Amino acid sequence: MGLRLKRIIAVIGPGIADEATEKEAEEIGRLIARRDAILICGGLGGVMEAVAKGAHSEGGITVGIMPQNDKKSANPFIIIPVATGFGEGRNVIIARTADALIAIGGEYGTLSEIAFGLKMGKPVIGLHTWEVRGILEAKGTGDAVEKAFQMIDEL
Amino acid sequence: MGLRLKRIIAVIGPGIADEATEKEAEEIGRLIARRDAILICGGLGGVMEAVAKGAHSEGGITVGIMPQNDKKSANPFIIIPVATGFGEGRNVIIARTADALIAIGGEYGTLSEIAFGLKMGKPVIGLHTWEVRGILEAKGTGDAVEKAFQMIDEL
Amino acid sequence: MGLRLKRIIAVIGPGIADEATEKEAEEIGRLIARRDAILICGGLGGVMEAVAKGAHSEGGITVGIMPQNDKKSANPFIIIPVATGFGEGRNVIIARTADALIAIGGEYGTLSEIAFGLKMGKPVIGLHTWEVRGILEAKGTGDAVEKAFQMIDEL
Amino acid sequence: MGLRLKRIIAVIGPGIADEATEKEAEEIGRLIARRDAILICGGLGGVMEAVAKGAHSEGGITVGIMPQNDKKSANPFIIIPVATGFGEGRNVIIARTADALIAIGGEYGTLSEIAFGLKMGKPVIGLHTWEVRGILEAKGTGDAVEKAFQMIDEL
Repeated sequence: MGLRLKRIIAVIGPGIADEATEKEAEEIGRLIARRDAILICGGLGGVMEAVAKGAHSEGGITVGIMPQNDKKSANPFIIIPVATGFGEGRNVIIARTADALIAIGGEYGTLSEIAFGLKMGKPVIGLHTWEVRGILEAKGTGDAVEKAFQMIDEL
Repeated sequence: MGLRLKRIIAVIGPGIADEATEKEAEEIGRLIARRDAILICGGLGGVMEAVAKGAHSEGGITVGIMPQNDKKSANPFIIIPVATGFGEGRNVIIARTADALIAIGGEYGTLSEIAFGLKMGKPVIGLHTWEVRGILEAKGTGDAVEKAFQMIDEL
Repeated sequence: MGLRLKRIIAVIGPGIADEATEKEAEEIGRLIARRDAILICGGLGGVMEAVAKGAHSEGGITVGIMPQNDKKSANPFIIIPVATGFGEGRNVIIARTADALIAIGGEYGTLSEIAFGLKMGKPVIGLHTWEVRGILEAKGTGDAVEKAFQMIDEL
Repeated sequence: MGLRLKRIIAVIGPGIADEATEKEAEEIGRLIARRDAILICGGLGGVMEAVAKGAHSEGGITVGIMPQNDKKSANPFIIIPVATGFGEGRNVIIARTADALIAIGGEYGTLSEIAFGLKMGKPVIGLHTWEVRGILEAKGTGDAVEKAFQMIDEL
């Protein structure tokens, strides 16, 4: 039952991202899977797809909390698509389920998830994202993942 | 059927607020009701109670979208309590239902509502609240309400 | 603040209904408004539109909990459209907010609302609808509304 | 990426169940995992715990869609707890995410899930549960699982 105790890390970010941001997201996905944590994300494209691709390439479990009614909208690296049909309401579920959140870049949707994460008292790590009191800024992909695990273990 | 066309203004802000903020919220509530719009808010205390008190004192309709299962948690100035049982998930519903949002002060919950409002393309007016790109800053209570109605009419 | 104490009655039923069923729904809407209760429903067509039409014709407050993102999908007799964007998830909110539910006819969506109402311990009155243990069958429109108010007052 | 194509089976039933029902649920969990499908359930006790126990004992992936804010309320056989905080609203997510639903016994909560499954056009298999038009009755645990996979493949 060791699986039960796996940590769950949310990576949040925009559905359309430039190549540099996607590379960072993919690297973060790889690092999360290598530390044997479950990745949770919004299941769509951009940062969500890149991070799932990275985690999947290392054999990690990837969970996509979809805004749509239909699982088919999940990117191809999502192993467990959860179809909520709740639109933006699914952002709440991502924040609630995560032990820590890592925000990369991002638009208003990402900001809502940052706000929920902080409100719920979860560690929120940021990599060139919104500046919000309470976010812990990371220096790079490795530092972001390191900080996330460190803060979970301190809770 | 003229009622159908009433505008719906969300006022968002913290559940615990200082006296000055509550006075502003109450004044905003009065101004919204005088312009014959429906007030929607989170239904609890602080800014939510003050704004509902103001709107109610002018005979306005006040809708409270409650996080709890139970309508009884609504403040006494909410005429129509909607019990969602969805916790923070109710923030999405407030943003979706509003034609415009006015943010007064506020913590992370308010920030999530600001983010949703902006993501949904709604006018978001701010009165000493979070600084987020896209928010229209108001100079005072009258200016906040004026701007909200102006922006709805321009949409 | 007397408004605060208004009872809220949900009327649930299919989005497409025959003329006889719609006439019953309209009559039920009128009776609810005459007893000064707030009507809550799913806000769309069929039974939802007919019951809102009846309540509206008597000056009643009609609340539509919409599955869509957009208030514009509400029928023309809904005074307060609440746009959830939660699809079928909105059925939970209707059951939670109501003090009693009246089911008229209905398909699977109505069945889910009956189930939620009964699970939440609310009185559920049925008029030629699903046969489910716990539903109180009504003999007609007047009896349905009478039973709903009676059971609320006994709670 | 073969994992992506895994079928997802929901097993729905009461949080408190007698021993015979729990044995059936456990057997159904084993059979689902042996056929390499993902199990989704409500994550709590009774039928939900028994079915997760069965699936887990065969190395299957078990997803629990929790009504609470907190993952810790998941039973010990849930590998991936999704904390929704949406109360009964989580029933919608279970039905949406599943390719087919198997109902065992059950109270009103189960009835709501049956109703959602049928409304969404999903196969719903029943084992001594509610009698609802559209449910396919199974003769036993093996037949229930066989029917679920058969109907998914026919869709």
